[in-house]
Parts: sequence; structure tokens; C-alpha cells
Amino acid sequence: MAWLRIALAQIDLTVGDIDGNVELIREWTSRARDAGAHLVAFPEMAVTAYPVEDLVYRRSFAEASRQAVEKLAAESGDMAVVIGYLDHDEGPRNAAAVLHQGAVRARYYKHFLPNYGVFDEQRYFRPGDSVPVIRLHGIDLAVTICEDLWQDGGPVAAAGHSGADLVIVINGSPYEQAKSDFRRDLVARRAAEGGATVAYVNTWGGQDELVFDGDSMMIDPAGRLLCRAPMFEDALLLHDLELAPADRRDRDEPTDGISIDRITLSNDLAEPPAERVDGGICPPLDDAAEVWGAIVTGTRDYVRKNGFSSVVLGLSGGIDSAIVATVARDALGADAVHVVAMPSSYSSSHSVEDAEELARRQGLRYSIVPIAPMVEAFHEALKELGGITGLSAENLQARVRGMLLMTLSNQHGHLVLTTGNKSELATGFSTLYGDSAGGFAPIKDVPKTLVFELARWRNRVAAERGETPPIPENTISKAPSAELAPGQLDADRLPPYETLDAILDDYVEHDLGRTELLAKGHGEAIVDKVIRLVDLAEYKRRQYPPGPKISPKNFGRDRRLPITNRFREGPP
Amino acid sequence: MAWLRIALAQIDLTVGDIDGNVELIREWTSRARDAGAHLVAFPEMAVTAYPVEDLVYRRSFAEASRQAVEKLAAESGDMAVVIGYLDHDEGPRNAAAVLHQGAVRARYYKHFLPNYGVFDEQRYFRPGDSVPVIRLHGIDLAVTICEDLWQDGGPVAAAGHSGADLVIVINGSPYEQAKSDFRRDLVARRAAEGGATVAYVNTWGGQDELVFDGDSMMIDPAGRLLCRAPMFEDALLLHDLELAPADRRDRDEPTDGISIDRITLSNDLAEPPAERVDGGICPPLDDAAEVWGAIVTGTRDYVRKNGFSSVVLGLSGGIDSAIVATVARDALGADAVHVVAMPSSYSSSHSVEDAEELARRQGLRYSIVPIAPMVEAFHEALKELGGITGLSAENLQARVRGMLLMTLSNQHGHLVLTTGNKSELATGFSTLYGDSAGGFAPIKDVPKTLVFELARWRNRVAAERGETPPIPENTISKAPSAELAPGQLDADRLPPYETLDAILDDYVEHDLGRTELLAKGHGEAIVDKVIRLVDLAEYKRRQYPPGPKISPKNFGRDRRLPITNRFREGPP
Repeated sequence: MAWLRIALAQIDLTVGDIDGNVELIREWTSRARDAGAHLVAFPEMAVTAYPVEDLVYRRSFAEASRQAVEKLAAESGDMAVVIGYLDHDEGPRNAAAVLHQGAVRARYYKHFLPNYGVFDEQRYFRPGDSVPVIRLHGIDLAVTICEDLWQDGGPVAAAGHSGADLVIVINGSPYEQAKSDFRRDLVARRAAEGGATVAYVNTWGGQDELVFDGDSMMIDPAGRLLCRAPMFEDALLLHDLELAPADRRDRDEPTDGISIDRITLSNDLAEPPAERVDGGICPPLDDAAEVWGAIVTGTRDYVRKNGFSSVVLGLSGGIDSAIVATVARDALGADAVHVVAMPSSYSSSHSVEDAEELARRQGLRYSIVPIAPMVEAFHEALKELGGITGLSAENLQARVRGMLLMTLSNQHGHLVLTTGNKSELATGFSTLYGDSAGGFAPIKDVPKTLVFELARWRNRVAAERGETPPIPENTISKAPSAELAPGQLDADRLPPYETLDAILDDYVEHDLGRTELLAKGHGEAIVDKVIRLVDLAEYKRRQYPPGPKISPKNFGRDRRLPITNRFREGPP
Repeated sequence: MAWLRIALAQIDLTVGDIDGNVELIREWTSRARDAGAHLVAFPEMAVTAYPVEDLVYRRSFAEASRQAVEKLAAESGDMAVVIGYLDHDEGPRNAAAVLHQGAVRARYYKHFLPNYGVFDEQRYFRPGDSVPVIRLHGIDLAVTICEDLWQDGGPVAAAGHSGADLVIVINGSPYEQAKSDFRRDLVARRAAEGGATVAYVNTWGGQDELVFDGDSMMIDPAGRLLCRAPMFEDALLLHDLELAPADRRDRDEPTDGISIDRITLSNDLAEPPAERVDGGICPPLDDAAEVWGAIVTGTRDYVRKNGFSSVVLGLSGGIDSAIVATVARDALGADAVHVVAMPSSYSSSHSVEDAEELARRQGLRYSIVPIAPMVEAFHEALKELGGITGLSAENLQARVRGMLLMTLSNQHGHLVLTTGNKSELATGFSTLYGDSAGGFAPIKDVPKTLVFELARWRNRVAAERGETPPIPENTISKAPSAELAPGQLDADRLPPYETLDAILDDYVEHDLGRTELLAKGHGEAIVDKVIRLVDLAEYKRRQYPPGPKISPKNFGRDRRLPITNRFREGPP
């Protein structure tokens, strides 16, 4: 057998920041070199970060990506460097380059272009149809990209069957709940199919509504997990792999429709390692920790990558704003989090107390602005035009709060965080330009029942660490209310959140129709009500700020419905 | 030679309203039958309307589409009926059915699935690969769908080469400026390529940001335009075509990769018409009339199809709100248009006068609400938190106006129209939740220079008709100002609109980089300023309401940029 020391650079890149990304790639290349790696691999589209969307069409952008690759290639030496980038030589392609001894020695173009869920790659890229098999220190290896891993009989298998004993897959694979287990199984299946070790490197960090989780790993053809990086952290996953030299590796029939190019970088076997380096296996996070990591990462990166250093949000004393404040604190530190209580005449006294208590526990920057004078000014101004009553008067209060936050944002340069959850967004239980105002919505994809779970989990973690639980118990235990009218409770207008979230999961996430929903045992009246609420709220969702995707189907790129849509689920 | 009387039903359908669409299809089928047609063709996806986006994934929806086709088939008789629908037999397909004598006699599945610009069809549909050649009254004809027409050597040519003397193309082809001429050339080219007459039927009407313009036509293989329907109107384009009977029509080699199915509906030649029916050629609209038609159509359909019967908008006395009010009046009638002047202490006296004058000329429902008391209430409330100054104070005024309109909307059930133009949206020269608040933005895709052109054109049309020009001359001639600070003019912050719009056209519509912009002769300082403004305003555009697309690249489905994006065009 022969040896290769492989480094996977799991790093957080920024879309469009080509100079910054190149700097990071240099820094981590040098760490890998210092650690004695024979090859370091960076994520999909590392040079531009991923996804760049319509920037693909800007020639100046593609040219900058190409030039960055040439520059990095010129700096390369004995250690092979694999980087993802945007290629524009024959139309835009999602590409990987292998850099070695001062030049680009091989290029690979992604074969399978995902065009579902959050992905639109058939809009942007031409597919590739060949696989370079690259000999490094006498071992044949190949490079493929992300979606290529998800397809049976694709380029990963083709590379393995053509003698590659190692297939490196570079990824920009967004987080969603439970995907990590699925991904591990997938990598193992592909390693078995190709009869080759698979080294999987993923980016991490937030990009608008996407959060990438890292979770880089290596798995051998027998399905053994050799090493695994943590989620939501920088990591250089470094591991010594024992592999078959090319002259002793089996080759099978070539795969139809995929051509193989053979490129030799070096034939000399590497010295066996004096001390074997093992990347270690980072234990998986529990479910709540994983979601929390995604939300904190998405929030921190949206704020920082857009040039903000502080946030402001309204604190109602309720659970949603409490969770968002806690996420912001974990993401940015207490000093960067400005919270404002904006009580109305309908606010209960405990609301302000709970808000203050939360701010005190977490050391946030707290202020209080009663909204009555502004609300009254609007009532007065519209008296002659018929006045403001009922729901309009409720919306008005929410909008005065939204305006106050936007004004504080403009005046002091804070980004406004929106505190709505997914159940609310699904049912339109929010006010456009009111509580939905803001730049980023951390719990946009978190159903209300999960909001409660996260609050309890976060307090428990604090207690385990000997810290004060960040969220006041009363905020978690009291009955949810928007407090826009006297004695109002969410339960007056919506079914209990357990019931609601179960229906939403079936209707929104799984696209079940009415008949199927009833067959699953949901009550008819509630189903009809929920369907109607969801269908009529599309226009509100369209103007909502982005927020981190944590579910298989978020309100955003994953779910694209027309606003003008008269289809109503009904009895057949 | 032999004869067929063909009817093209250019109608306005509603997404998701399957029952309503079936009713319309029945009504127009019966008109065509009464007019003696042998075949009537309806637009692409007529049963569901187009585009249905993620409704494709709802099985209950696909099933309803399928059932509607079966129902219409059962009602069919001697006259062939061609309808577009969503098929789900083997995964979702964009399909056409030919109904005759009580049954579906042929089905065609779109071959080319557009996945660029506003289209995402590779997300939704599986492509077809066969073409049924259908014999009706002894004449072979074929049916294809929309994008199939745009491809050389595609199914239109294959049908012609296989003996079809008539190819019917059913469309859901969105309007953009100058597309109509292009489309005519394309139909002629395809007719020549296939050696067959092409009958092109397009839907019309608004669907969220898309406007379909109709413009149905028939062109023979020699390139002669036989008949053409008006844009933005219902039309039954009825024409007697003299065609070659199947037994005397040449056939060429079959086209690679496209299989041909032959289906016979009837072999008897039709009687030559006693009096020949000619569909006539509707003369093209001039450029401004075409854009006006698109905006009025888009606005009317958005309002009505979403269940509203009235609109409200703020009237500043400036050109943008004047144009939007006029569009709304043309779309919905004066009684349905509520306009509100909301002067501040910085508003010039002529602003309110111009607003009043416009309302008076058009008979709109006018009211006035000075904003000072609300603005003062906010200043007072935030005094202790550092006060409100500069841009924040300007934004505050815009937001008080936005809130007033939203409150009137909630209270009285009007849809709020947003009055921003494309130049403003491009440069971020608007206040989030202020002047950008609303449900629909009629001139969102209209650059400021075109706004002026439209105003002059609309006044001229009125004068030609002997009506009062709807827009006061002073509104057109005065220097644009947001009036958010004393003596403020747009020209203080932005380059002259002629200069700005020319740069925006190159940067936004044509994706030119900085170097290319300078090479085109734009000034360096202005280019750098405009690029920066455009790049930083993405977050505002993301929360903007939809508005009708009239340009080749609108801010919406056409242009999909990340918000988090550090790419800055700069010197190489």
C-alpha cells in the first residue's frame, strides 16, 4: 500500500469577495503545507463562494474568478491544491481546478446540475462530461463536485471504476435538519459503489437564506468513517490515507457517456508517515444544538458579511423575540444587541417585566419606548376619513413598532432583526411592515413548537454550564399573545400550535392536498382554516426578509408559489 | 388544395382557477363552433393558466387539471379542440391535448423547457420527445408548445418534415418591449424551416409580475402574415387556411431524436368555404401604447384576480404617482381609485395643487392628510434615544405616508399601489416600508425617462380624442424632487435621469462590467457611483412588491442576485 496525507479545508467564504476568499485559501493552503499534506481541497466555488446566482452572467466577475485561479496556481508547489471556481471558457461552468507545481494541471466541470429546492444550476451552468484521473505520488485520484455525489452511476463511480482509489468531492451543501446522517450514508454508499475512499469537504457559514454546515468527512469503500469535522466551525480535517498505488489498483469497464482523462502529477510513492495523522471523529450534535448552530451562524454571517456590527429588535416579553435576542447575543455578543420594549395600552405589565428581565440576564442594551402617542396621532389624523378600527387598529400598533425599529436602524446603523416564526409566516399571522419589518429573520424557518423546544434547550445548556438561563421562565410558560387588543391570546385565532404545526408540516413541507390531510386524521374544520390562511398569505411572505433555512422546505427559494392563485383545496 | 377553418382563442385565464378557466374554454369553444371552425386552439397550460410554479408539486392540483381535460374531452364533437394543461401521468409535464369526438385523441409534451430569464421549467417538467401528426379533414397538422418554436431543428421543423402542413403553437409568452416584431420574424422563420403554416396562439393578461400580450397570428411557409390579433385584448382569430391534403404533401427525412406518431381524426376533405373568412391583420401598437397596455393590463389583473375592487395610492404632485394614478384609472375606472395627498412641512404648495388638479381632471377619490403630527410624535418618542436626524428623518416621513396608506388599505379594503419607478428601484432611491410599501408596483420596470415619455404620450392621446389631458403640465415639467428636506431635488443626489438610465441599461440589463461601461463612454465618477448604489440596494428590491415586467430584464424573476455580495466592480 501507499500513503497520502489529505487536508480538507472547511472554511467560511463570502460571496463575491474574491480577494478575501483568495486570501483565506492562501492562509489555509499554508496551514495544510505546514502540516505536511500532499493535497488540500477547498469547497465548491471557493474562489467566488456559493451560490453566486446571476453574477454568473457578469463577464468581469467570471474573469476575476479565472484570474484568481491563475494567481493561486502560480503559487502552487509540491502539494496539490483543489479549488472550486466559476469557469467561463466555454460558457459558465461550475468547475474545480487542480493546482500543482505552478500551474493548473487538471480541470473538472460538475456533471449533475441540481435544479430543485433551493438550487437553480441549470439556469447558470453547462454540465461537464469527463473525469480527470490524476496520479499523485503514484496514487490515482479524482475530483467531483457536490450533486455528482448524489447520483448513482455518476462520475464518482466512473472515477472509481477507472482506477481512482480516492475521490475528492468538493461541496457547497446547505444545512437542513437531519441531513447530516443522510449525507454520511450517501458518502458511504458512493465509496462502496466506486470502490474508492471518498473525501468530502463542505463549506460552512451563512449566505442569505442558506446556511452551510461543514460536516466534512472521509469514508473508505468498506463504509468506515475515518474522520469527521465539526459542524458550523472552521476546520482543517487532516488524515493519512492508506491507498492502493495505481499499478496495483483494479480497473473496471468505463462508464457510458463519461470520458476519462489521465494526468500524472507525480509517480514517486510518498514516504509512510513517521507518526500517523488521524483527523478524529467529531461526535454529532443533538437536534436542537444543530438547529441553534445553523441559526446563529446564519445570523452572524448575514450581519457581518453585509457590513453591520450591531442589531436592534423589539422585545415583547414573548418567546419569539426572546429567542431571537438570545440567538443575536450568541452570534454577536451582548454589546452588539440593542433591544427595545415598545409597550402599548394593551401590553400586560408582565410583558415589559419579562423583556427587562431577559435584557438584564443577557446584558443587552435595553430601552423602552411606549407607542401610545404615535398610535394616537394616526387615529387623530384618519378620524375624518372614517377612523381606524378592529384589525386595522391592531396592525397600526405593529407598524408603529416596525417604524420605530427602522428609524433606530437608520439613525444608529443597526440591522433590524425580525422576530416572526415559521408558523406565523405560514398563516399570515403577522403585520406587513409591522412585526415583519427588518433585514433578517433568524427564526423564519422555525415552527413555533420548535421555538419552545429551543428555548428550553438553550436554558438547559446554560444551566449545565453553570450560567444563568438566558430566557425568563415566565416567557416560556405563559400563553402566547400578540397583545394588540385587550386580553387577546393566539389561541383565540389559531389552533393550538402542536395541531397547527402538524398540519403545516403536511401541507407546506409535503404538499399534501385536502383529501390527504383529512386521511391523515387532521380535523376538517381546522384543515380548511389552515389551508385558507396559508394560501392567502403568499403576498406577505414575498415581502418578508430572508432568514436561515433549517427545514427541507423553507419559505424562500425552496417554495415558489404564485401570489395570484385561485386554486383552493376543496372536496373532490 | 384543401381547406381548414382555424380559430385561435386568445383569452385571459387565471392561475389556479381551474373551474373558471374551463368555463372560459367552453364559452370560446362554442364561439368557435358557431363560427364554423374545424379546430380551435387555446394557449399553453390554459386549464391551469401559466405559470403555476410550485403548484406543480401538489398532486391534488395536477389531478384537478387532468380531470378538467377529461371533462372537456367528453364534451368535444366534430370540431377539434387543442388545449394546454398540466399532465402528471409520468411526472409533471407541460402538455397539450387534442380533443375530438368525445375523447382525448392525442397528447403532446413540450420538448424544450426554458430555464432562463423568468422561466424555471426544468425545475418543474420532464421534456417530451415525440410529435403526434394528426390528420383532420385529410390534412396533417401538429401541435407544439411555446419554447419549441424558438429552437432551430426542433419539433416544429420535425412536424413539417413529417408531412404536417400546419403547425399550431400554443403559448404563454410574456410581454417585453419590442418582442412582438421579434416574434413575428421567429414564426416566419419556423414556418419556412418546416415548410408549414404556423398558427401561433398566445394567452394575454397579467399574472403577478408577468404580462402576456396575446399577439396571436398565422404565417405561411413563404413568410406571409395571414392574420394577426390585437395585443392585450380577448380575440378569436378565425381564418380559412388553404392547405395541402396529406396525400399530396411532401415528406422529408425524420428528425433525429424526435419520434412521430400518426393519428387520424378524419379523412374527408372539408367543403371549400362559401365565403372565405379572413382573420385580418391588426396593425401594431406604437411603442408607448404597447408599454401602456402592458402596465394597465398587469395592474387590472393583479387587482381583480386577487379579489380587490379598488386601490389607494399617495399622490405627491410628482410624475411617478401621477402616472400610476392614471394607469389605475385606465385599468379600473375613476371610482375605484383613491388618492391621498400627504403633505409635510417640506412640501411645496404646488405639490398639493398639482395633486388636486390631477384628481380633479380624472375624477378620482381625493383626500388630504398632513403628516406633521405623526412625524412629530415619532421625533418626540425618540428624543431620549438620541433623536432623529438627516436621512433617518427623511425616511421617517416616507414611512408615515406608507403607514397611512396601509392603514387605509386595511380599513377600507383597497389594494395599495406603489409608485416607484425602475431607476429609483435600481439605485435604492426609496424608503423601505415608506414609498416602497404596497401590494403592486405598476411602474416598477419603467425607467424614469420612459415615465416622462408615457406621461406626454398619454396626454397627447387624450388631446387627440378631445379629452382633457389627464396629467397636469406642471407635474411633467417641474424638476423631480422627493421633498423630504427643504429645497431638495433628485438632481442633488442622482445624475440627470438621461445619463442614469443609459448607465442602468448597460449595467443592469446588459450586465456590463465597469471597464466595459467606461469603454462605452460613460463618465468614470458617475459609473462608480451608480454601480455602488445599485449593488447596495439589493435588500430593498427583495422586499419590494411585484410589478409588471416590460423590459428584457426586470427586477424580479429575471434578475436574481444575492443580497450578501461583496463583489465590487473596480479597476482591473
